[in-house]
Amino acid sequence: MTAVDFDAFVHKLATVSGEAILPFFRTALGVEDKGAGRGFDPVTEADRAAEQAMRRLIRDTFPAHGIIGEEFDNVAGDAPYVWALDPIDGTKSFIAGLPAWGTLIGLLKDGDPVYGMMHQPFIGERFFGDGGVARYRGPAGERILSARDCGRLEDAILFTTSPRLMNTADRAAFETVEERARLSRYGGDCYAYCMVAAGLVDLVVETELKDHDIIALVPIIEGAGGIVTSWEGGSPVHGGRVVAAGSRKVHEEALRLLTA
Amino acid sequence: MTAVDFDAFVHKLATVSGEAILPFFRTALGVEDKGAGRGFDPVTEADRAAEQAMRRLIRDTFPAHGIIGEEFDNVAGDAPYVWALDPIDGTKSFIAGLPAWGTLIGLLKDGDPVYGMMHQPFIGERFFGDGGVARYRGPAGERILSARDCGRLEDAILFTTSPRLMNTADRAAFETVEERARLSRYGGDCYAYCMVAAGLVDLVVETELKDHDIIALVPIIEGAGGIVTSWEGGSPVHGGRVVAAGSRKVHEEALRLLTA
Repeated sequence: MTAVDFDAFVHKLATVSGEAILPFFRTALGVEDKGAGRGFDPVTEADRAAEQAMRRLIRDTFPAHGIIGEEFDNVAGDAPYVWALDPIDGTKSFIAGLPAWGTLIGLLKDGDPVYGMMHQPFIGERFFGDGGVARYRGPAGERILSARDCGRLEDAILFTTSPRLMNTADRAAFETVEERARLSRYGGDCYAYCMVAAGLVDLVVETELKDHDIIALVPIIEGAGGIVTSWEGGSPVHGGRVVAAGSRKVHEEALRLLTA
Repeated sequence: MTAVDFDAFVHKLATVSGEAILPFFRTALGVEDKGAGRGFDPVTEADRAAEQAMRRLIRDTFPAHGIIGEEFDNVAGDAPYVWALDPIDGTKSFIAGLPAWGTLIGLLKDGDPVYGMMHQPFIGERFFGDGGVARYRGPAGERILSARDCGRLEDAILFTTSPRLMNTADRAAFETVEERARLSRYGGDCYAYCMVAAGLVDLVVETELKDHDIIALVPIIEGAGGIVTSWEGGSPVHGGRVVAAGSRKVHEEALRLLTA
């Protein structure tokens, strides 16, 4: 069974998670603070309902598969196939009613990301890829996603969720990149990475990512011809400090500045 | 003729502007830099096409009305009725492919905002109000908009498009508010104000606004029971430094900190 066989199943996961989430978007929500003094980190009922719905479907269909998620304990993390779930990436946008959030569904085979989807159920759009090709389906029609090569950092549109999430050293390093980019923009979360795949954003630089924040996005970015690594140039699958780019040259320039 | 009579006409303006904009969203765009060294200020073909379509419809229907817009010269700005148009508020989101942008259509009567709409044609949602009531129509159904009173600044979700847009003194003042808010988030543009009206965001603090950035939003926020003024507590219709809030107490606290 190749990764491509999971395509229909991942769309089904996206559908059940979207159905679980939508009743909670832009309604009065029970928002807890799980950050316990470490800043505001909201959890919503929607997050839990969607992750439970996806876990149930995975367990019923592929009982031997592992699952790592945001809201519940990891299951069989050393299985050959492991699902990485983040029901609402962009929780702060979600609780504020803004549309730039999405559901991340990733699949690891022997530790490598082989399939990923970002689903925005309110807008009704899906970005998905298997590392070889990446596709879009939504209000803008159906299309193949293709990252762009903007050539140099001075021409790059740069995104990061917020420099305030970075520690002092990382923030200083980020600012050396930001000073050279054409345009810097905060927010976006999973959308920023999907827009690298769509050829509309050139560079995303982030820190403090969890594995489930990035695994699903890797096959989309790579399928669109982009590149995503750690700040040191290694695999991004464990999260932490991540750089995604449409241009290999811009990616190299960013890594050099970030690790100088 | 009362402002309410303009309801159907404003929906028609929104429809023609949306039709003009959508072919340009997430496609290769001709982006110019009209900032001429003053930072990046993109103009898109979509912006111009939409403003031209709206100006044409206004001219044909209400030839005596004035028009102030983003892309073209003001017309009869001293007429009793003046339209304030911003075809794409959130241009940076638009060119990056993110959904948090919208079309602003406002109507002044003798200098006061009497009707406003924010239209997001890609998502298909409209926020509109006449100062007495504000409404929503879109994928989340149809509903009356109602701002919330979060009670105190420490419980407020705060938005600003970017502190980097502020001058040094304004940024320092903004940070005194930001330090006390529960959650601070950058980006959002017109969406942040509409989410004050929707009762999901508590406070928006911005600077350097143009009149057409804010006129359409005033009747929406006020119609939902919120408050929007300049930092000094005066009328916000000339743009500049603006504060919008769902809670009068939080609004007062913010003004006090911003002008201390």
